[in-house]
Formats: sequence, structure tokens, C-alpha cells
Amino acid sequence: MPNQDLLDRVCIILVRARNPNNIGAVARAMHDFGFRHLRLVNDYPVPFESARSAIDASAVLAAATTFPSVAEAIADCSLVYGTTAVGERVLEHPLQALPAAATTILSHLAASSQSATQATDSATPATTAEPHPEPRIALLFGSEKTGLSNDELSHCSALLTIPMQQHDDLRHPSMNLGQAVAVCLWELVRQPGAPAISTPHAPAGAAVLERLTTLMIDVLERTGYRRHHPANSDDAQVRRLIHRLGLSAIDAPVWMGFLRQILWHAENKQ
Amino acid sequence: MPNQDLLDRVCIILVRARNPNNIGAVARAMHDFGFRHLRLVNDYPVPFESARSAIDASAVLAAATTFPSVAEAIADCSLVYGTTAVGERVLEHPLQALPAAATTILSHLAASSQSATQATDSATPATTAEPHPEPRIALLFGSEKTGLSNDELSHCSALLTIPMQQHDDLRHPSMNLGQAVAVCLWELVRQPGAPAISTPHAPAGAAVLERLTTLMIDVLERTGYRRHHPANSDDAQVRRLIHRLGLSAIDAPVWMGFLRQILWHAENKQ
Repeated sequence: MPNQDLLDRVCIILVRARNPNNIGAVARAMHDFGFRHLRLVNDYPVPFESARSAIDASAVLAAATTFPSVAEAIADCSLVYGTTAVGERVLEHPLQALPAAATTILSHLAASSQSATQATDSATPATTAEPHPEPRIALLFGSEKTGLSNDELSHCSALLTIPMQQHDDLRHPSMNLGQAVAVCLWELVRQPGAPAISTPHAPAGAAVLERLTTLMIDVLERTGYRRHHPANSDDAQVRRLIHRLGLSAIDAPVWMGFLRQILWHAENKQ
Repeated sequence: MPNQDLLDRVCIILVRARNPNNIGAVARAMHDFGFRHLRLVNDYPVPFESARSAIDASAVLAAATTFPSVAEAIADCSLVYGTTAVGERVLEHPLQALPAAATTILSHLAASSQSATQATDSATPATTAEPHPEPRIALLFGSEKTGLSNDELSHCSALLTIPMQQHDDLRHPSMNLGQAVAVCLWELVRQPGAPAISTPHAPAGAAVLERLTTLMIDVLERTGYRRHHPANSDDAQVRRLIHRLGLSAIDAPVWMGFLRQILWHAENKQ
């Protein structure tokens, strides 16, 4: 996850969102991925209290701010992405697919955060240093029905689209608002290089595998398998089968226990 | 976007989903990203007709199939990922963050699609050539409230989690079902196509692993292991052990033969 300082410089702006459940879903995705700045552009009071699907997102909703216009909502932002499903609208902005847009956004945040650090570190006497404005980035999402209008898009520095599957029915695909926001935010926080959270257990050692092989051979001998299928169960074949199991050091003793009991049972037929 | 053939080999399986709107949202995300195989595991009739949020997803919903159990829903799948929010549950499976899991899934699809092509291209006369089963991959999502149970997780070959922001309120974050599915599917289609990692053999399918599990349980029962070590060998534990073996489609029948003979021998003690 990028650090909280970077996430706090991203504003999610919903323009004319109509459905309180969608606003709630957006807030929940923001909470899940660590974003805190939700802004709403609406010309009527936003029914926050009915944003029911916002489990765990009450802090995001409580801190949300409303603006009467897109211009006011983005006033402190230095990079403004409008999201679009790219229908028949004439696009007059550079359009980036989500992965490229996310790369641009993250570079922008990293670069400005560097220059902010440099400014702080510089020799400028503290008394004259102005507080360095931390550039903010806005991600605009339009209403569920119509998306962003051409006028709203005109406030954007660039457009972002989530590539989707084209279908034969000719209707242009569009995403559910809560899902679109979740996918965009995920793209910003996903770190492909992150190591597996837990790796499988250490593999069983060769000595253990050899004991298992011997046990398995005894079992196959004692239960009559080798007599019936000699071509299928010579020592080397059994050893290869055991090695190919890729047993972990945790599981190997369990299988050893299984086989010992099977062998004991086979040897003690009354 | 990966081609439709690859997307068609991914099954989204919702286990005990309760809210028709969530089922609709899942179907819509599938439609948006080109996935067509939705399966539902429910012990009551699924209220498809009220999956209202499924704008544009009627084809996905119409083709959805229902199953009474996880085992039946995954029977034709060779790689089964369970999704989890990683709470306090004890995890006994390898756990991958979403990006790593998506890479594994795409490699698996690419590799098996390659071996399928090789099989088709081989000199085997068409009359004797068996139709090559195209391995399917399952992505399991649990119910909105409880996620996947330990028993349901025991059917999985691996676990996948969407990394989320940890908050101070100590509640473990969890995602809205429709958003979680959208993010996972996006991760699968956003990649230009991971290079094929050649695996020696295609993995055994879930149905075969389930038959092996049942056989192994019978063997442990019949040979007295379960009586002596009940804590070590309940059904879910045995299933997890079998799934963790990573058996190939070539080796699985050999082990099946071993176990059948062991069982036959144990049952026919004179």
C-alpha cells in the first residue's frame, strides 16, 4: 500500500451521484483502500444518512464535503482526471486506459512529494518559507445515468477509462459506480511486486521422502498392488511419484502416519 | 483483454450469496469484463429475477447455474482459488495477494491452453483422440456476512486476498461482494497476458481430487487411523492434504489405483 500521505492527496469527486447506496459503496471502497477525501458535487442536499451500504465507511462519509460546482470541487487540485466509458461522446482530451492513468497519477504524487521534501530541506530560513502546498489529484466520476457532461469534462486535464469487453449487442458497456471507483482505487494501491503474503511451508527433506517411499513400497507390497501391477510400481516409479507430490515439511509426517497405520493394519490381519 | 476462450475457462462461484443485488452486481462486473460463467452454491432457490442491479448482465444471469455443494460446483475445475479477507481464521493454504494470484491463474490458463494445442496437433489419429478437457479455474467468493467456511476453504487449492488498508478501529476490513469480484476480474483482464510458464503436466481436476479424498477417508476409516487419531483426519483435513499434494492429471489415477487396492485389501481381510 502507498503511504497514507500519498493517499490523502487523492480526492474522489462524485458529480451528481443520485443513489445513496452508490455513494455508500464508493465510501466503503475508499475506506477499504485507505482513501479519505470524498467530495460531492450536487445541487441538492446529499442524503448521506441513507447511504446504507457504507459498512465501515462512516468516517469517510462524515468527512465528505459538498460543493455546488465542479470548478469549486477541484479548485485545489493540480491534476484532474475525468472518468468516462467512452461512448459516442466526442473526446477533446487525452484519454488514458486505467493502468496508464494510474502510473501517471502515482508519478505525479511521487514527484510532487519529492519537491515538497526538497523545499522543506532547503536553506530558506524557516520564517520566510511558505507552507508548501501539497498538490492534490482529483478523480471525477459522473452520475450513474449520464456520466460526466461535456461541460464537466472541460474541467479535466485528462480522461481515464476502464477498458471493458465489447459485446455484440452494440450497447456500450458501463460500470456500476461503486465498482468503477473500487477498480480505479485498487489500480492506485495495487503493488504488483508485493511478495506472496504467506508462502507454502518449507518442502520436506529428501530423507523424509525416502522414508515415505520405503513405507509406500511396503504398503503396495503388503496389500497386493505390486503383485497385480508390477509394471506400475517398481521402486523408482514409487519414488518419483512421492517426489512429485511436492510435500511440505508439515504435511509429510501426517502422510507418514497414514501409511504407518495402513501398513500396520495390513500386517496384522487376523 | 485476454481472448474470450481464456475468459470462458474462469468460473465465478458465489457460495451462499444472500443479497440478490449483490448477485446482480457480480453479474454486471462479469459482463463488463467479458466473463460468462457464473455458478451459485445455495441450498435455496436463488432469486434471480430480483437481481435488479444487473443492468446489461442478463445473459450472464440467464446462463448461471446452481449447485447444492461446493464440491459439485468445482468438479470440472483444476485450480480453485478461495477468496478471503484474512481475518483471524487459521489459514492452512498458501495465500497469495491478488496480483500474484492473477499471474498464477493466467499462467495456468496459458500453459494448459498450450498443452491442449499440443495434444490437438499431435499425430494421434483423430478417431482415437479424446477431446482434450480444457482445464477450468474457479474463483470462490463466500457469503457477504461470513465469507467462506473452513469446510468450503478445504476444497480450494490456494487462497487469494485483496490487500486492504489496515485501520485503527481493529475491525478487519472486508469488501462489498460486487466490488471484490469487480476488482479481481479487473486484475485478470488488465494484464496483457503473462508469459506461459510451462508446467510438466496439467493438474488433476477437482472431481478427481474429491474422489481421492473420499477414497483416502475410507482407507483411514477402514484401517483404524481415524479411530486412533480423530483430531488429525476429519474430512476437511484430509481434503486439504489431498489438494496440497498438487497432483497432476497423470499421477492422480496412479494414486487412485494405489488407494483402491489398499481399501480392497483392508476390506477383504479374511
